[in-house]
Amino acid sequence: MKNIFLIAALFISGICVAQDVVEDFQPSSVNQPGKQYPQVNSEGRVRAQISAPEANNVRLDIGGVKYEMVKDENGVWTGESEPQDVGFHYYQLNVDGASVPDPGTKYFYGAGRWGSGIEIPADDSNIYALKDVPHGLVSEQTYFSEITQSFRRCFVYTPAEYAENPEKRYPVLYLQHGSFEDETGWPGQGHANRILDNLITANKAVPMIIVMDNGYAYKPQTSGGGRPAMVFEEVMLNEIIPMIDKRFRTIADREHRAIAGLSMGANQTMRICMNNLDKFAYYGGFSGTSNYPSSDEINVETFLNGAFKNGKSVNDQIKVFWLGLGTKEPEPFPGSVGAFRNMLEKQGIDYVYYESPETAHEWQTWRRSLHQYAQLLFK
Amino acid sequence: MKNIFLIAALFISGICVAQDVVEDFQPSSVNQPGKQYPQVNSEGRVRAQISAPEANNVRLDIGGVKYEMVKDENGVWTGESEPQDVGFHYYQLNVDGASVPDPGTKYFYGAGRWGSGIEIPADDSNIYALKDVPHGLVSEQTYFSEITQSFRRCFVYTPAEYAENPEKRYPVLYLQHGSFEDETGWPGQGHANRILDNLITANKAVPMIIVMDNGYAYKPQTSGGGRPAMVFEEVMLNEIIPMIDKRFRTIADREHRAIAGLSMGANQTMRICMNNLDKFAYYGGFSGTSNYPSSDEINVETFLNGAFKNGKSVNDQIKVFWLGLGTKEPEPFPGSVGAFRNMLEKQGIDYVYYESPETAHEWQTWRRSLHQYAQLLFK
Repeated sequence: MKNIFLIAALFISGICVAQDVVEDFQPSSVNQPGKQYPQVNSEGRVRAQISAPEANNVRLDIGGVKYEMVKDENGVWTGESEPQDVGFHYYQLNVDGASVPDPGTKYFYGAGRWGSGIEIPADDSNIYALKDVPHGLVSEQTYFSEITQSFRRCFVYTPAEYAENPEKRYPVLYLQHGSFEDETGWPGQGHANRILDNLITANKAVPMIIVMDNGYAYKPQTSGGGRPAMVFEEVMLNEIIPMIDKRFRTIADREHRAIAGLSMGANQTMRICMNNLDKFAYYGGFSGTSNYPSSDEINVETFLNGAFKNGKSVNDQIKVFWLGLGTKEPEPFPGSVGAFRNMLEKQGIDYVYYESPETAHEWQTWRRSLHQYAQLLFK
Repeated sequence: MKNIFLIAALFISGICVAQDVVEDFQPSSVNQPGKQYPQVNSEGRVRAQISAPEANNVRLDIGGVKYEMVKDENGVWTGESEPQDVGFHYYQLNVDGASVPDPGTKYFYGAGRWGSGIEIPADDSNIYALKDVPHGLVSEQTYFSEITQSFRRCFVYTPAEYAENPEKRYPVLYLQHGSFEDETGWPGQGHANRILDNLITANKAVPMIIVMDNGYAYKPQTSGGGRPAMVFEEVMLNEIIPMIDKRFRTIADREHRAIAGLSMGANQTMRICMNNLDKFAYYGGFSGTSNYPSSDEINVETFLNGAFKNGKSVNDQIKVFWLGLGTKEPEPFPGSVGAFRNMLEKQGIDYVYYESPETAHEWQTWRRSLHQYAQLLFK
């Protein structure tokens, strides 16, 4: 009877105890050098382990669920999660109420913090695998932004051939992260560089430059207080693009400039693209659209100042309008992307729609989206 | 009486309780965005804070000492260290026996792990401060090493003017990290890029390329087992230098190639330099020499195969032979560097010796060393 209450209490509090686990765990590919834990098995379960001899309660906190870990006679706690979707997930450990990174993993910025990540192997991990192919450079560019009065940073991918063709100029994709993430997302857990290295080697994508900046940009705080104004569009147009066109060998026209983003970044980049069709000819929205979070029918007269009102004009100007979504994404994403697609169809606007099988609002959806989208650019 | 025993026990076990603390703490400059803790005061004390409502014992573990933290009524633990030296230090928290990174800081690789770091402001932080000056690029180059049969990575600093002078070629400094660190040390906590950006802007250093690779390189493990052979010299000469000379606009001769390293890296790079004087004309040893850990008199007949036997020949070939050490470094560093200097003097070999005031075997010594050394290169 006591056990029934305990199980019920655990269930109600969102705590699960994993059972019937397949014992074929291997260390995660994003562990720190030499670290054996965390591990992942063929079901996609995550097994974490940490030495905490004096602790009373240690939990693995992943995918919004806390899993109880169990202590052995040496004070080492071990526990595993339910099977997780393939791809990359942020997670943490909880030691006697302290939420901390797992000391076994490398750290990634997401969910508004630098914290642990885990990689669940996918059948298509080939697309972002590190292979013995020519590798482009990922360059960190620090710059002072006059608009925000702050130092900012972007990462710039240049394809492997860039250094060997000193006269050649390249098209540019501006690629943005999501909310509570930063400019490290795409070159880090997103593997934008590996995806492009592999595509370019296979002749499936045109060699291109990719610029990954930080989507959070605010006017300097005034003494009056209040919430500072978001000025990312202004920074993108007046600071980032001119800097990239100056410091890299770009083809600086709209036909050779694409923009894309995931989630919040999809919303931001759609606005930037539609407000500046003289600057961009390709748009990619990964798990997001600018009508987010609404699922209501879109009023084309008012939405983005009527940018989609003239469907023929949009078709003439945008060479590829691309949307992607994971099949397991929660609302409001399917609803708002669905409402957006309805609008596009009603307006007769051509677009490409991709569904990432069995993935949610996470990086595997976005890696696949970039892999699909990049193949259509600048052709 | 009980308290006396407790204090004695704490003292014996290396646990300290800080007292008489100056209350002018500010968040550390390497905290995660928006995080208020850890903080540092004008004495250089570190104050850490973490919510751990169910914990019995939380400690701040820094500089080889564990400091007890104290819990408040909300389950938040706070505690501070004794004053620390200026500059960067690795540290961790200990929650009921679990050694974990502090969730308040960004993470750095050192002490053989990705973990927390803290920055104690220094009077000369100006040398590595992020300023509104032209910023060079820090580029991540992934490559497959045939020698080690593994993927490796280096970071390459190119000065701000590099992109704007497409015909100009540059000298190269190969700059190595210490033991239990990796290629992220110099572009991360070492701030090699900022130090050079500031020096180049002030016309105190020649614009140069800096290559920061990983000093750990082993032959692939054979089935026979045993410890794999260290082959960093082979990787440096046959893979890294040719790759850099191919992919970057270098001046590929000995007069335009320098090598330096810290601690283990000083030892490694001295061997590489002296074994390959046809490749390098500048050497920098930061807190290390190849006679480490010995303080014994050096036998010039046998040391590094007699590389220092002919002092005049060394003087003719090496344009700058540079050594640096912190005044607070523990043995065996002062002893072995001292024995090495005695040998140089006996052989009549010219060298520059720098002492970093009031710093130990840590990054502030090495930032200052790079700042001094870089000013003497390629002139």
